[in-house]
Amino acid sequence: MLYSHRIDDALDAKVGKRGLPQVSLDRELGRAGAALDKFRRWKADGTLPLLSLPGRHDDLVELKPHAERFAKLEHVVVLGTGGSSLGGQTLLALKDQGFGPLAGRPKLWFMDNVDPSTLAELCARLPLQRTGLIVISKSGSTAETLAQFLTLLPEFEAKVGKAKLADHVVAITEPSDNALSRIAGRIGCPILDHDPRVGGRFSVLSLVGLLPAMIGGLDVEAVRAGAASVLDPVLQAGDARGLAPAIGAALSIGLARERGIGTTVLMPYCDRLGYFAFWYRQLWAESLGKGGHGTTPVRAMGTVDQHSQLQLYLGGPSDKMFTVLILDTAGQGKAIPAAALGGDKSLAYLENRSLGDLLLAEADATAATLVRNGRPTRVMRIATLDERVMGALLMHYMLETMFAAELLGIDAFDQPAVEEGKVLTRQYLSARVPSTRRQS
Amino acid sequence: MLYSHRIDDALDAKVGKRGLPQVSLDRELGRAGAALDKFRRWKADGTLPLLSLPGRHDDLVELKPHAERFAKLEHVVVLGTGGSSLGGQTLLALKDQGFGPLAGRPKLWFMDNVDPSTLAELCARLPLQRTGLIVISKSGSTAETLAQFLTLLPEFEAKVGKAKLADHVVAITEPSDNALSRIAGRIGCPILDHDPRVGGRFSVLSLVGLLPAMIGGLDVEAVRAGAASVLDPVLQAGDARGLAPAIGAALSIGLARERGIGTTVLMPYCDRLGYFAFWYRQLWAESLGKGGHGTTPVRAMGTVDQHSQLQLYLGGPSDKMFTVLILDTAGQGKAIPAAALGGDKSLAYLENRSLGDLLLAEADATAATLVRNGRPTRVMRIATLDERVMGALLMHYMLETMFAAELLGIDAFDQPAVEEGKVLTRQYLSARVPSTRRQS
Repeated sequence: MLYSHRIDDALDAKVGKRGLPQVSLDRELGRAGAALDKFRRWKADGTLPLLSLPGRHDDLVELKPHAERFAKLEHVVVLGTGGSSLGGQTLLALKDQGFGPLAGRPKLWFMDNVDPSTLAELCARLPLQRTGLIVISKSGSTAETLAQFLTLLPEFEAKVGKAKLADHVVAITEPSDNALSRIAGRIGCPILDHDPRVGGRFSVLSLVGLLPAMIGGLDVEAVRAGAASVLDPVLQAGDARGLAPAIGAALSIGLARERGIGTTVLMPYCDRLGYFAFWYRQLWAESLGKGGHGTTPVRAMGTVDQHSQLQLYLGGPSDKMFTVLILDTAGQGKAIPAAALGGDKSLAYLENRSLGDLLLAEADATAATLVRNGRPTRVMRIATLDERVMGALLMHYMLETMFAAELLGIDAFDQPAVEEGKVLTRQYLSARVPSTRRQS
Repeated sequence: MLYSHRIDDALDAKVGKRGLPQVSLDRELGRAGAALDKFRRWKADGTLPLLSLPGRHDDLVELKPHAERFAKLEHVVVLGTGGSSLGGQTLLALKDQGFGPLAGRPKLWFMDNVDPSTLAELCARLPLQRTGLIVISKSGSTAETLAQFLTLLPEFEAKVGKAKLADHVVAITEPSDNALSRIAGRIGCPILDHDPRVGGRFSVLSLVGLLPAMIGGLDVEAVRAGAASVLDPVLQAGDARGLAPAIGAALSIGLARERGIGTTVLMPYCDRLGYFAFWYRQLWAESLGKGGHGTTPVRAMGTVDQHSQLQLYLGGPSDKMFTVLILDTAGQGKAIPAAALGGDKSLAYLENRSLGDLLLAEADATAATLVRNGRPTRVMRIATLDERVMGALLMHYMLETMFAAELLGIDAFDQPAVEEGKVLTRQYLSARVPSTRRQS
């Protein structure tokens, strides 16, 4: 296992009345077992290609020339929102911690919003003639992504020339006649197929996440191998009792059902997992938030949110479960020598300790403090963070979300509630009255 | 008023059974009025210097030479976590949207975590000989900030030389003999006074937020003027009924008390307000999360989180109130000409519309959709976003949080629950056993 998964501190035996009784966990796990045959069937009949992606190589071979072409540029702008953006951002965080890309690789910019001010900055600051553009929309009709694309196209054309425009753009969309594929067709740029059966929030292991990752210099085969290491035991299991993703789902749903735990906090102690927690937030919220079901996922960051949210977690209402995700950073970073403390006794606890020691001690201390205060707490640990481990974590949470949906009896893969707002947006845009006046 | 504040869509008359009855709002507002005399007294007797900051200039004059000195560098690293970091980040987002600083200004890096991997990247990538360091800890004993400082000091010393080290560093801490002031004393760098009566999460209008802002090129006088425009009417009011911050607090607390609304979502439709929402998240959580009270603040971003969280907001449990914060972006960005659509009828709604039109239409549509689905929704609108408006929003939320604390009968300014974890961290660090083994 590329990670460990410990839920004892979320059970009532350990944490008191807000914890889940073992018998309830077992009951949920028994029900989760029923999903195993379904998942196997979904893989076999192609209903859920996600379950085949970890074992595939052929599609990566097809992707390679596009990645290599874009890897020679200075910048790559990824247009896409939600699931079209968060997977790539999650993976890239392994190689770019905000100080720039790997040597010899382009800087990737994920533009997931339609704020005109941000787009204007982008156009003013980036050398578009040395910049590539990846446009991702599964349906090919995402208003935000199309509007961004149509806004940026003339800027790119002005800088790189009409003849070379196609070399700077790649579109990723379903193989259908849609607005994105039509625009791409007019430009003459490559159009790569987004599998229609892989929804955006489950698309990180497909080209949606992996093309940006390849351009950024990640070992994407390792990402898939890590995912396979979590998926394979699930697809081979006779029951759900030994499966971490099923146990996690049973815990979450049990706590929601029996203890009114309406919020689930994911708190990694590792900066490179900051986007991962945002990715999880979408996955969980959008998959389970329907029919009155679903818990609210919260992304926290250790140690930062000890100074921002921990007071609420410990002193506020006990309506949350916690997952503390701990990277073993013991000994990482330079140890602070005794001399640096200048004989200051108040700093003795830092003597010969490194930032990694401190980060790990804080993670352990926060988990222990949550438990001591009766908060149901799950601890996941990883020894290192690389592509394989990231792949494992991604697959863990996709499976945990799928198990949770089965326990709730809902469809993890649709998002029925958001259509109303899209229709209204188009009405407002078409109206002649400025929309600011409409509501005032 | 630099912003408008409309809560009609959060009342039961408009939104049904999850909304607050007018009579309940009036009752909470009546109680909020009792806080007005207290706030005036806190200002007059110096208990709460925050309430005097918007009217001050003298401290900015003192700050100016330090800001000017650092403004000549290429990079400035700010060490500090929680309230020592979020205020500065919030303000800087007005001038640096991720593509780099204002022309002629240094790039500011807010290092709020102790991840050894991130610090190593910083040291490897930044030219420390052209980099300044601002170290902020009110108490002067924040473990994370001190450990960062002690880790970076040798790196700086190696690059800039011992003789010039003091020119590269400024410390901000309480005027007391503490670990930070002692280290700074040994280096011989300037030590600027952090007012002990201005807590971290309320410090954005003090030098903690304003020194980074001045270095980054913001008009900090305008920030304070904006704050004053919200504060002054509160300090002059006879009752709370016309005061937006009091109305907001009464709404939040009333909904929590009477409707079980345990989560409050702040969703700005403006990238530059992304850090503002994180700043709010700390302010609200840490001030109110005590004694079993407090609601969970959630930071969302429009339009991005329509593709990530909106399904949960509309289809999940109705346990949230929403604040949609809308910037009037009508007409901003280049309009998409009809020709760009290539005759594609599915794109007709974008014809002659700009990204700003789309962003505004989506904000209005999302607010309307939330209301149609019975979700209590507050709408705040700003016509533009500059330093004055940012100052107004910051003061609104500080006052709203203070009113909310008064309504709950709790102290907004302490954070009693987090001490246990700090003690445990030091114990774990001092122990000889690696902490990973302790819990496995």
